[in-house]
Amino acid sequence: MKKLTELQEIISAAVAKLAFPMHPAELYEPISYILSIGGKRMRPALLLMACDLFGGNVDDALSAALAIEVFHNFTLVHDDIMDNAPLRRGRTTVHERWNKNVAILSGDMMLIEGYKLMMGVENRLLRPVMDIFNSTAVGVCEGQQFDMEFETRADVTIEEYIKMIRLKTAVVLGGALKIGALIGGAETKDADLLCDFGENLGIAFQLQDDILDVYGDPEKFGKQVGGDIISNKKTYLLIKALELAKDHRAVELNSLLTDDQFDNVEKVKSVTDIYNSLDIRQHAKTEMQGYADKAFKALEAINLPGSHKQYLRNFADGLLIREN
Amino acid sequence: MKKLTELQEIISAAVAKLAFPMHPAELYEPISYILSIGGKRMRPALLLMACDLFGGNVDDALSAALAIEVFHNFTLVHDDIMDNAPLRRGRTTVHERWNKNVAILSGDMMLIEGYKLMMGVENRLLRPVMDIFNSTAVGVCEGQQFDMEFETRADVTIEEYIKMIRLKTAVVLGGALKIGALIGGAETKDADLLCDFGENLGIAFQLQDDILDVYGDPEKFGKQVGGDIISNKKTYLLIKALELAKDHRAVELNSLLTDDQFDNVEKVKSVTDIYNSLDIRQHAKTEMQGYADKAFKALEAINLPGSHKQYLRNFADGLLIREN
Repeated sequence: MKKLTELQEIISAAVAKLAFPMHPAELYEPISYILSIGGKRMRPALLLMACDLFGGNVDDALSAALAIEVFHNFTLVHDDIMDNAPLRRGRTTVHERWNKNVAILSGDMMLIEGYKLMMGVENRLLRPVMDIFNSTAVGVCEGQQFDMEFETRADVTIEEYIKMIRLKTAVVLGGALKIGALIGGAETKDADLLCDFGENLGIAFQLQDDILDVYGDPEKFGKQVGGDIISNKKTYLLIKALELAKDHRAVELNSLLTDDQFDNVEKVKSVTDIYNSLDIRQHAKTEMQGYADKAFKALEAINLPGSHKQYLRNFADGLLIREN
Repeated sequence: MKKLTELQEIISAAVAKLAFPMHPAELYEPISYILSIGGKRMRPALLLMACDLFGGNVDDALSAALAIEVFHNFTLVHDDIMDNAPLRRGRTTVHERWNKNVAILSGDMMLIEGYKLMMGVENRLLRPVMDIFNSTAVGVCEGQQFDMEFETRADVTIEEYIKMIRLKTAVVLGGALKIGALIGGAETKDADLLCDFGENLGIAFQLQDDILDVYGDPEKFGKQVGGDIISNKKTYLLIKALELAKDHRAVELNSLLTDDQFDNVEKVKSVTDIYNSLDIRQHAKTEMQGYADKAFKALEAINLPGSHKQYLRNFADGLLIREN
């Protein structure tokens, strides 16, 4: 089994070698730019990992893995326009560095380039792999739309939130693993189970991210603690708190969300106090553990040698224990 | 052979039956909206026509034809954002009726839906058809980028202009015909020739459109005469005039393009006078005829019965004689 870091390096080297035409420059330069500013290459690495797990040659999965990475970067470029984000991974976003039209069109081109790269699978797998890729792409767009709608809705339920993060974040992990498994020679049943593992792990990971935003060690977490609270982001924690808060606590929470008089430090402290009084952290951990359990249950059922399952278990443990 | 109007009706009926999920509403409603406001359904009808010409069953080509129509509407939705266009086919554009974020994301979804529909071809044709679709999509995005760049460039050449309209407009016609031909059972060689026919016809058609903007009968043309002149659009006519105008005429033309003191009627008259003095209309007609000749030459070489070629000849004649 190849190590995750080794797979990430294979991806980074292959991304660096991706060549696009010189002209039109404003169409292709932003693609090279966004792909060059990195990230952990986790999604394509998972695709290679799945191929490797089932005894396939990772070279055969490289084009599909690049497709997933280019697709993921397409979603970042368009999401950053929609979110008016100035920075991505600490660098200027495409629409800020060029302009919105450039970001729209080069994003479109990245989606098409993703499809082109996905065509690199062998004929036998072309239809099933393209079907998975299409479902993944549909899911991610639906998830982004739900996410945007939630910003202006006060009545988002936990069920809706989980559905949103499943679509926006988790289906790509599941889809990448499933495609990699098929390329590696897995039976459909095992590829489906690995997909299940990835999706549920993805949801657990996102819930952990919600917890860490409030309760994480800022040095280890690498983000400002309370960022979600400051921006009124509808995370699991906030939605659960809105559901559980009664009487004066409900009034106080709503006032913290709508009133501009609080400074950020005060707001983070007050909202966190409400979370603590409602035991929100424990609720979130229980929910997260539920999805982690689902992931591990799917993993157990996969027809793979014990050592390979242990590899996946270690990988999942590595993702899910970075809380403090 | 089915009549073009009959094929257009088949498409319109099939578009009306396309069903999208109810939620998220802001993602799918714009797709149904833009598809419902019509247009001539020329691209998908050409795809069906090509299938029919080679003896195929148009039902087998319907999904691919819808893919081309949904793809075309994706380009309209995103182009309208980039062009800040308030209206499309006399109706409010998606980004005006909803907002830019909705138009970006539902456009993305239409591109994905286009791919999903294109998967409706039989396995034997999946790879060649997807390859054509990918090349077409790449071409259209490159063409749109060149078109935007030309707005701010004073030194666009005729060669660059022809390349731009080939990419932005003509490759979709060629691609639609080629895909339809393959589904209809054509040999690759004949499908390529039909693609050539479509591309060159598309360029001729666009050049005719440039001519009609200045010299067309406004009642038959259905647009304001001189619209391109008023907006300084870099058409074949303007680029050729900039190339040919010398001395005082060059000065006058540049002043008409840059000076705001002229009212629209005056500007259209003065630019048209310059075009007349440089014989621009004849230059454009000669160029257009050159591409029409290329189209007809490709047509002659296709291995089809004489009556079928005559059908295509009549179709092309119908497109290219609407000048006055």
